[in-house]
This record gives sequence, C-alpha cells and structure tokens, in this order.
Amino acid sequence: MESLEMGVATSQERAGALARAWQQLMGLPKNSMAKVAELAKKAMNLGKDDPRRITHSLKVGVALSLVSLIYYYQPLYNSFGVSAMWAVMTVVVVFEFSVGATLSKGLNRGLATFLAGALGVGAHHLASLSGKTGEPIMLGFFVFLQATGSTFMRFFPQIKAKYDYGMLIFILTFALVSVSGFRQEEILEFAHKRLSTVVIGGSACLIVSIAVCPVWAGEDLHRHIALNMEKLANFLEGFGDKYLRESEDDASNRDESLFRGYKSVLGTKSNEESLANFASWEPRHGRFGFRHPWKQYLKIGASIRQCANRIEALDGYLTTKFHAPPQVQIRLKELCAEMSMEAARALRQLSSSHKAMIVPSSATPHLENSRAAVKALKSLLETASRKDATDLLAIVHAATVTSLLIEVVDCTDKIAESIDELSSLAHFKTAEKEKKHVECKEVVLTVSAPEATVSPENGTSPGRLDPAPVV
Amino acid sequence: MESLEMGVATSQERAGALARAWQQLMGLPKNSMAKVAELAKKAMNLGKDDPRRITHSLKVGVALSLVSLIYYYQPLYNSFGVSAMWAVMTVVVVFEFSVGATLSKGLNRGLATFLAGALGVGAHHLASLSGKTGEPIMLGFFVFLQATGSTFMRFFPQIKAKYDYGMLIFILTFALVSVSGFRQEEILEFAHKRLSTVVIGGSACLIVSIAVCPVWAGEDLHRHIALNMEKLANFLEGFGDKYLRESEDDASNRDESLFRGYKSVLGTKSNEESLANFASWEPRHGRFGFRHPWKQYLKIGASIRQCANRIEALDGYLTTKFHAPPQVQIRLKELCAEMSMEAARALRQLSSSHKAMIVPSSATPHLENSRAAVKALKSLLETASRKDATDLLAIVHAATVTSLLIEVVDCTDKIAESIDELSSLAHFKTAEKEKKHVECKEVVLTVSAPEATVSPENGTSPGRLDPAPVV
Repeated sequence: MESLEMGVATSQERAGALARAWQQLMGLPKNSMAKVAELAKKAMNLGKDDPRRITHSLKVGVALSLVSLIYYYQPLYNSFGVSAMWAVMTVVVVFEFSVGATLSKGLNRGLATFLAGALGVGAHHLASLSGKTGEPIMLGFFVFLQATGSTFMRFFPQIKAKYDYGMLIFILTFALVSVSGFRQEEILEFAHKRLSTVVIGGSACLIVSIAVCPVWAGEDLHRHIALNMEKLANFLEGFGDKYLRESEDDASNRDESLFRGYKSVLGTKSNEESLANFASWEPRHGRFGFRHPWKQYLKIGASIRQCANRIEALDGYLTTKFHAPPQVQIRLKELCAEMSMEAARALRQLSSSHKAMIVPSSATPHLENSRAAVKALKSLLETASRKDATDLLAIVHAATVTSLLIEVVDCTDKIAESIDELSSLAHFKTAEKEKKHVECKEVVLTVSAPEATVSPENGTSPGRLDPAPVV
Repeated sequence: MESLEMGVATSQERAGALARAWQQLMGLPKNSMAKVAELAKKAMNLGKDDPRRITHSLKVGVALSLVSLIYYYQPLYNSFGVSAMWAVMTVVVVFEFSVGATLSKGLNRGLATFLAGALGVGAHHLASLSGKTGEPIMLGFFVFLQATGSTFMRFFPQIKAKYDYGMLIFILTFALVSVSGFRQEEILEFAHKRLSTVVIGGSACLIVSIAVCPVWAGEDLHRHIALNMEKLANFLEGFGDKYLRESEDDASNRDESLFRGYKSVLGTKSNEESLANFASWEPRHGRFGFRHPWKQYLKIGASIRQCANRIEALDGYLTTKFHAPPQVQIRLKELCAEMSMEAARALRQLSSSHKAMIVPSSATPHLENSRAAVKALKSLLETASRKDATDLLAIVHAATVTSLLIEVVDCTDKIAESIDELSSLAHFKTAEKEKKHVECKEVVLTVSAPEATVSPENGTSPGRLDPAPVV
C-alpha cells in the first residue's frame, strides 16, 4: 500500500515538476516580452523627459552617415583612401550632446592633431638622421619622452579642466605619425591626410550640431540656475505655508517631491562646472554674447548650494511640531512664516528676472521685507524675555528653527548679491515695463492694506513688518 | 621758452619710453625664465603631492614604447601591417590612473570591438546581397540605425554609469567594419586584425598597470573614507577644545586648514561614485576580495557628507563667542565640549578601525559617552529653566549651537551604523588584540577617575556623564 502511495506521490510530484518546467518554458517568451516592454517604457520616459535626447541620437546618425559618404563616393575615396576612417572616428568621438562640448572636443582634437603631426614629422626627420639602426631607438626614445611628459601635464588642474582631451590626442597623433614614419615613405602625406580627415569629421559634427536643433550648454546652465532658485523657493513657501501656518494633518498632504526638491540642488557642483566650461567654448547665440560671464554662474551656483545646505539643516527640525513658550508662540510663528514667505518670493522674483535676463530690482522689496521680519523677530525675543520667565527646553526648538531660518535669509541675500553682480557684468536690461507693472501693484497694495489691520492669516502685506513688538 | 621746455620734455619722455621698452625687451627672457621656473615648481609640487603621478606617467611611456615595438620588429609588422596603429591607439586611450579604470575601459573596448566587429561583418554580408547599387544604401541605413539606437542607449543611467565607453566603441567599430567592407575585400581579416591589435594594446596596458606599482581605485576609496572621518574629527576636536574650553585669543591660533578641512568633504560625491565604479571592476587584491561591498562605501560617504553639512551649519555660529545665560554657561559649555570631544574620539576610532579593516567595537564607548552627554544636556536645560528666569535672546545662540551639535552627534551615530554594516558585509575581523588593550585601559580609567571628583578641565572620564544636573 505504502509503496503504491509513494509511487503515486512521486509520479504526481514528477508531473508537478514537469508542469512547472513547462510553465517556465512557456513563460520565457512572456518574461522576455515583459522585459522588452519595460525597456521600451523606460526608453519612452527618457525621451519624454528630454526630447532633445532623441534629436541628438538622430543627429549623430545623420553626421555619421554623411561622413561615410567618403567611402561610397569614388572621387572622394580616391583622395583619402583608408584614412577616411579617421573622419568616421572623429564623428563618433567628438559629437557630444551640447554645441559647447562638441566645439571643445573638436577644437582640441583638430589643434592637437595639427601640432602633434608637425612635431611627429620633425621627430621622424631627426631620427632618420641617425641611420638605420639608430632610427628605431631614437623614435622609441622620443615617443617615451613625449608620452611621459604629456601624461604628467594632464595632471595640471588648468590643463585637465579644458585641454585634457587635446593632450590625449596629442600623445596619440605624435606616436602614430612618428612611429608610422618608420614604415611608410610618405610620412608627410600620412600626417596631412590624418589632419584633413579629422577636420572633415569635426566640421561635419559642428555643422550638424549647430544647424539642427542646437543644444547650447550656456542656455542649459542659465535655465538650471533659475530652476534651482525655484526649488529653494518651493521649500521656503511650503515651510511658511504648511509647517508654520497650518495643522500637522495638512503637513502630510504637502507635495513631498516639490517640497524636498532642494535636495537635488546639493550635488550639482560638477555638473555646473562642466556646463560652464562647455559654455565658454560656445560662440555668440541668442541672448548670450561671446564673452558672457559664465564664471559668475559658478559663484551663484555656490551660494545657491550653500542656501540648500542651510535648508537641509533646517529640514531636520521639521519632524516635530513647532514648539515655543506659549506666550510668544503665535507671534513667533507668524514672523517666521513672514520671513520664509518673503524669502521665497524674493527667490522667485530673482529666478524669473534671471530667466528673462533683466536687472532683478523687483526682488528688492521682498528682501527688505524679510530683513525687517528678522529685526522684528529679534526685538520680539528681547521684549518677551524681559516680561516673562520661560521654559528653556521649550525655547530650544523654536530658537534653533528661527536661527537657521535667519541663516537661510542671509543666504538669500547672498544669492541676490551674486545675481546683481551677474546682471551688471552681463549688462542685463533694466525692466522698464516691469517697473510700471510693479508700481501699479504697489499702489493697489498700500490702498488695500493699511498698517493697523493685520491678521495672522494676512501676513504678507508690507505694513505689518514694523519691528515694534506686538506680544 | 615754452616750446624749448616742451622739446626737452618730449625728448625726455621719448628717452624714458625707449628705456622702458629696452627694459621690457631685456626683461622678456627674465620673465619667461621666471614663468618656466614657476611651472617647474608647480610640476614639482604635483609630483610631491602624489608621487604616483610620476610613476603613472612613466608607465604610460613604457606601455606605449612596448606596443610600438610591433612597428620596429619585422615579423610582428608582417602579420599586422598598418593595423598596428590600433594597438598604439588602444594604449593611449585605455591606460588610466587606476587599475580599475584601466580594466573597465579595456574590457569595454575589447568586448565592444568583438561584438560590433561580428555585427559589422554580418551587416556587410546582408548588404552585399542587395547588389552593387543597393549595397551602399543598405550600409548607410544600417550605420544610421545603429548609431542612432546606440547613442540613445547611452542616455540610460545604468549604461551611462558602467558601459558608456563600450557603447562609443561599439558605434565606432560597427561603422568602421561595415563601411570599410564596401572597399576592402578581406573584411573578416580587417575585423580580426582590429580585434587582435586592440587585445594586444589592452593587454599591454593591463600588464604594465598591474605589474608596476599598481594604483587600486578600491584602496583609494577605502583610504579616502577613513581620511574624511578624520577631517570631521579634526573639526569636532578643535570645536570642543578651542572654541568651548579656552579664551577667544587662542581661537585665532588654531590651525585653520586642519580645522576647516571638513569643507573638502562636501563636494566628494562624484569622485566617490567613480572610484566605487572602478573598484567594482578590480580583481582580488591585498585585503579586498573580488565581491567587496563597494556600494556600502557610497552609503558611508553619504552619511559622512551629511555630517559635514551639519558641521558647516554649526561653523556659521562660531564667529561670535558662546553666549548663554550666566547660570548655565559653564555647565553648558562643558557638556557641549564633552559631546564634541567624544564624537571626535568615536570618529577617530571608526576611522582607524576602518583603515585596519577590523570591527569598530572600540568606538562604541565613545558613542555611548556622547549620547549620555546629550541626555545630561537636556536635563540640565530642564532643571535650569525650572529654577531661574532667563533672558530669551541670551539663550538663542547657545540653544542653536547645542541643538546643531546634537544633530552632529546623531550623524556620527549614523556613520557608525553604516560602518558596522560594512564590517559585517565585508567580514572584517574582530580585533582580539585590540580588545585586550582597551580592557586594560578601562581598568586604569575607573581606578584613576572616581565619579565624584570631576573638574571642568577633566571632562572626559566616563564617570561625569551621569545625567543628574550639577548646576
């Protein structure tokens, strides 16, 4: 009986295993289909996030096809021969996403090929003077010396930043030309062909890169800076509006990704540096002149990052509710909210005037308002302490939050300063139209918001910033 | 008279201008000499800062000379011919500073050349089926399709991180092989020669890179993490020792570059990421296995950076003297100093055990001490507030500094946690020798420092961490 049962069991098991294997086998195409679908979805998202990626891919395809015409068209092939491949290679290696990067690589490659080619021909000539046995030794020595020296030069920070690729091509071309000369009779022709094919490839890249939907690194950097200020403003607005003014239930409703967008600002240094480097290679385009002060963008970027750092420190305190001695709680919250909202408004104004490339005068009133709120806050703390005995532990949280917020406001001032500098360096226009607009608005505000009637909810009118303590 | 004076003046001026021009002309060689001297000094410093730079340069020179032997040695040249230049090119492009980077580039290049070569031969075969007129059109279409697709694939973050260079070589080789096939009869030989010369060049790089003073990216990353912890400890030590314990005159004497070393920690993210990427390509070496958890290093790096961020926020408050209500000033300063010093000690222990790759148990008592100080601090603030009325403004500064310092201690805990994780992931040894050493020390401490006799200067014995308020 038992053995029979066991037999049944094993046969069942076997059947089960078989069925499973069959399912897996059938599932294979399904799985791979699912994977392909997932991949396609990812690719769609990549393209949707930045459609310029699709254009760029097509542009590379076009440039490469253009250059490979040298192979197909007999007269062209006759004059270049196998060297045509240098053109293909140049296109693949030089064509980068932005015009600036392509220009930087192309010019580096062209110039380095020219210099190293000339030097290689010279080295070959010098080596050939020392006879048949001496020549390879001399050549090897030259190549060794040049490679060692140039590789070491790549460690110089200034060279690494702008001419690293050029140094690489310099080593490469020198070695190729001088060593090939040992075998080929027409070394001058070899060097000349290499240079002209590199120039053809580089030109194809540049023409396609600039003529078809150009991507300017400078424009990217300009927009990137404006966007980062917006991100800081989003946090400060959320902080003032949700954390300080409303209940904790609402706090959980806030749009997290918008609120914590500042986090992506923290690690942008290297990206900004390479964008500024590429931008400095770009010719005049759109609203950007040839000598646009791109270095100033790095300064602005640094102060934005510093502000984001302070905001991160502040963010660490938002897990608990705002906690202050009851007698100052309402007024303190109100002033902090005021500071935060005004700093956010100033950042938004700075961002939009930066985007439009006009002098950021419209941000000034908001900056002044936030500074006035800081003063009011200090005098509030002084008066309050004179009047009441207070719980130390209760004040620690509030004091820290307030103090960090004041730091954030200071950073906002710094950002405004560096943007002011940029606007004078780059000769931004003063916004006369904008001015009239703002003046009209101010008249409306002073009429509708007299100094006396300030409710905690209406904490943004200029009148309520009088530093006289209210508590 | 006037005209005479003027004549004298102009002739004097002219003589002056001539003299100046002469001086400048004479100064030219002097100036250029000075510039050359300056350059030489910079180069010396670069070499002194990291002597591996000099070794690396020499290694590149050696590898390049080795590979160019193909040109000089007749039997070798007979079998490769002009294709020998691919070997030269591979060495120049693939040889990177660390073994991991060289391996990553070499493997990428080798594999991509193999795959693209095979695919290129296939494409050429397919195109040749469509007749003499159809062939270039088909080839052009294939090249366009492949270049566009592969360029787009380079935007996938996972591919960009590890296989970007491989994709580039894939596009390049496919275009070269398939298009060259239109002109050359022996396309298989072309592809084969290209692959074998690339393999020769890559092998030369790898052999020289590993055999002569190898630079391991993994070891660099490991040391870099330990060094960064030291930098944080330096700040915390300076903060506890100089800022909190001594007068302001001494504060100016502190070693600024050591004290503010934490600033260099802030922008290390991209550097750490590339080091971890390269390290993951490296074979087993020294104390690092093949599957060493390099990703955990990124986690540790992130928590170190977060701690540095908090320290930067704290640093902003050190411009003014520590400012607290007089009745708690001494005790508060003392506890803050305690926290700071203990956190610094914990970081130093973590750093040294990380460097030696042993389980960081010796840091635990210091971490506990700093946590105990945090508790004592909180209870001090509570008791003080119950007893005395106090000046709000006076407490804001102290409260903020204290609160930020508590955050720093929390971050230290996080660093310790992530290093603990690493030590279990990477199977660090427990330090049995180290253990005995620590036990001996503890016995000495409990004997020499009884709980009652604690002076403010001697604020580091474990006994004084009792949270009972002293004020």
